[in-house]
Amino acid sequence: MMSSGPFILLDSARCRQNIARMEEKARTNGLVFRPHFKTHQSHAVGRWFREVGVNRITVSSAEMAGYFAKDGWNDITIAFPLSRFHVEAVNRLAENIHLNITFSSIRNMLDALPLISQNVGVLIEVDVGHHRTGVNISDTRQIALMVNQVAENPKLAFRGFIAHAGQSYSVTGEKNVLAIHNQAMGELVKLKSFWSQQYPEIVISYGDTPTCSLADDFWGVNEIRPGNFVFYDIMQHLIGSCSLDDIALALICPVVDVYPEREEAVVHCGAVHLSKDFVLFPESNRCYGLVCPYNGIRWGAPVEGAYVTSLSQEHGIISFGASGQPFPFHVGDLVAILPVHSCLTLDTMGEMVTESGEKISTMRSRKR
Amino acid sequence: MMSSGPFILLDSARCRQNIARMEEKARTNGLVFRPHFKTHQSHAVGRWFREVGVNRITVSSAEMAGYFAKDGWNDITIAFPLSRFHVEAVNRLAENIHLNITFSSIRNMLDALPLISQNVGVLIEVDVGHHRTGVNISDTRQIALMVNQVAENPKLAFRGFIAHAGQSYSVTGEKNVLAIHNQAMGELVKLKSFWSQQYPEIVISYGDTPTCSLADDFWGVNEIRPGNFVFYDIMQHLIGSCSLDDIALALICPVVDVYPEREEAVVHCGAVHLSKDFVLFPESNRCYGLVCPYNGIRWGAPVEGAYVTSLSQEHGIISFGASGQPFPFHVGDLVAILPVHSCLTLDTMGEMVTESGEKISTMRSRKR
Repeated sequence: MMSSGPFILLDSARCRQNIARMEEKARTNGLVFRPHFKTHQSHAVGRWFREVGVNRITVSSAEMAGYFAKDGWNDITIAFPLSRFHVEAVNRLAENIHLNITFSSIRNMLDALPLISQNVGVLIEVDVGHHRTGVNISDTRQIALMVNQVAENPKLAFRGFIAHAGQSYSVTGEKNVLAIHNQAMGELVKLKSFWSQQYPEIVISYGDTPTCSLADDFWGVNEIRPGNFVFYDIMQHLIGSCSLDDIALALICPVVDVYPEREEAVVHCGAVHLSKDFVLFPESNRCYGLVCPYNGIRWGAPVEGAYVTSLSQEHGIISFGASGQPFPFHVGDLVAILPVHSCLTLDTMGEMVTESGEKISTMRSRKR
Repeated sequence: MMSSGPFILLDSARCRQNIARMEEKARTNGLVFRPHFKTHQSHAVGRWFREVGVNRITVSSAEMAGYFAKDGWNDITIAFPLSRFHVEAVNRLAENIHLNITFSSIRNMLDALPLISQNVGVLIEVDVGHHRTGVNISDTRQIALMVNQVAENPKLAFRGFIAHAGQSYSVTGEKNVLAIHNQAMGELVKLKSFWSQQYPEIVISYGDTPTCSLADDFWGVNEIRPGNFVFYDIMQHLIGSCSLDDIALALICPVVDVYPEREEAVVHCGAVHLSKDFVLFPESNRCYGLVCPYNGIRWGAPVEGAYVTSLSQEHGIISFGASGQPFPFHVGDLVAILPVHSCLTLDTMGEMVTESGEKISTMRSRKR
């Protein structure tokens, strides 16, 4: 156990349950399950996916692809637009594994594609409403230009299209998430039916945790690649993707001082531990995490009315506003903070400990 | 050079200039200069302080004290309330170096003090208006209780008081920062004159980058311990602590796609690189960084009207709103992002490269 905290405690049973549930959903829908490994960035958690039959994965950088290739993963999609600065790493990796790279426009395709010297699969990213990266899905002309670029190059195999309906992160409730999902399905199924005439083997790859958690029907696509669901977090809970009992990690940290007169406690849990993503909750207050009791083994349900409302580099401020309740925190307690965005919390911390004391490192582990 | 970016480029000349300027200010004011090393967390940058005569430092954790002790620093203040969970590390360290520990109340003092087994110096944190941690400076009774606890224990030396006027981070302009500074000085000078009758050697330690950058008179204190000034950042620039030309680090990252029709470019620079602190600028828009051209050697002045307005895990969105100007970004460019909060950006990245290509590691460097 990392002696003193702050440290991330991973509930491995919940994590494996989250994995099993999503794998089952993919399988029963006849979908390829290519989970995004950017959330856990860990060989150990990756192996839990392998145990349920997963053998294709998604990552967000060439560096991350290399990290997982070292642990035997040999079919990897880098779901981030390739830039010329990462082609060398891609060429090296593609000597040894099946690698799919992504382009989000004819612009970055023309910039980086000529530098590819190995056999790789190519995915074209289409924008289904998130407006971050990707060709507008209705821009048939640009898509055709890109497909032709790939078709002309004997080293490249056109694999299909990749989409991320990330606008699902800015809504709450199953109904709103499903509205986004159904619109994306409607657009993607048209893309698929058009291009699969010429390329019958193409993949339509899709995936964000809200839609993949809440939808039961994926008629427009044949592959999903959610990532965050492996741990979930407060943001996902507020969107409606998970229950609080699905959240598989928490930051354990000491209460270093209490100020009951201003209804605050101070924890050793700052931006360098939790990261600074917040949700506006309750109402329009910034909430950086929910606070749970911790008995030295596991955490309990969140303390009602307790929120992490401020973070500096090492200090976290817990505000406690449950009227009529005694102030629940004491100096020397350990508490568990459920993070707003588990991907960033783990990325910042770099490692975790399971409930049985097993240390889990990641590609972001610190040297120490 | 870390090939592909994103990487942090450190302008070592600016950094050394920032160090020299603050050291000179401390010296000409007759103050002990005990810089906070949490910003750079680096042996190499620490040595630049040593070169200008600094031999006492501040850190924010026992772990960080251990990291700097390894590089020969032997007079270290941990400016974070000690909790029982870190006493063991403190005891180990105090066998070999002069260590000062901090308590922010009689509560955490009574919780952790009985576990101290080595000779250490003790500082009492007083709250001069930031309301994060510390005894209210007017709570004479609690302060006296704490001083007595220290005086009764032969292993402990009462070193004095520590204050952080962190409310200076939430104002802008020299006048407002100096108003906070002068109020803090007025309160601290009373504390000093009262307690120095009984303890003539006590230190009044003070320091935040805004007040230490902007004030020229520190009559209430005898030690300053700012940290962020070593690099500065956009937040400090907006407060008024520094000019843009004082900012000593930037994140170099590739432009992976451009969307001139929506006046946006996408860079490979996400929350896992830049961290998620933002300022509301211009007006009430979230700004995660300013965008500068980068010629492969150094960065230039920020591009007018260009701001990082959104960050996901790996993607950064630059919005460009300068009316009438041609869209200035192209796929395959490298650009430099001036961070909002340099402490967190370096903590997240874990290492830097100087303009001459020297790699600078920190205690947060990744294993890779």
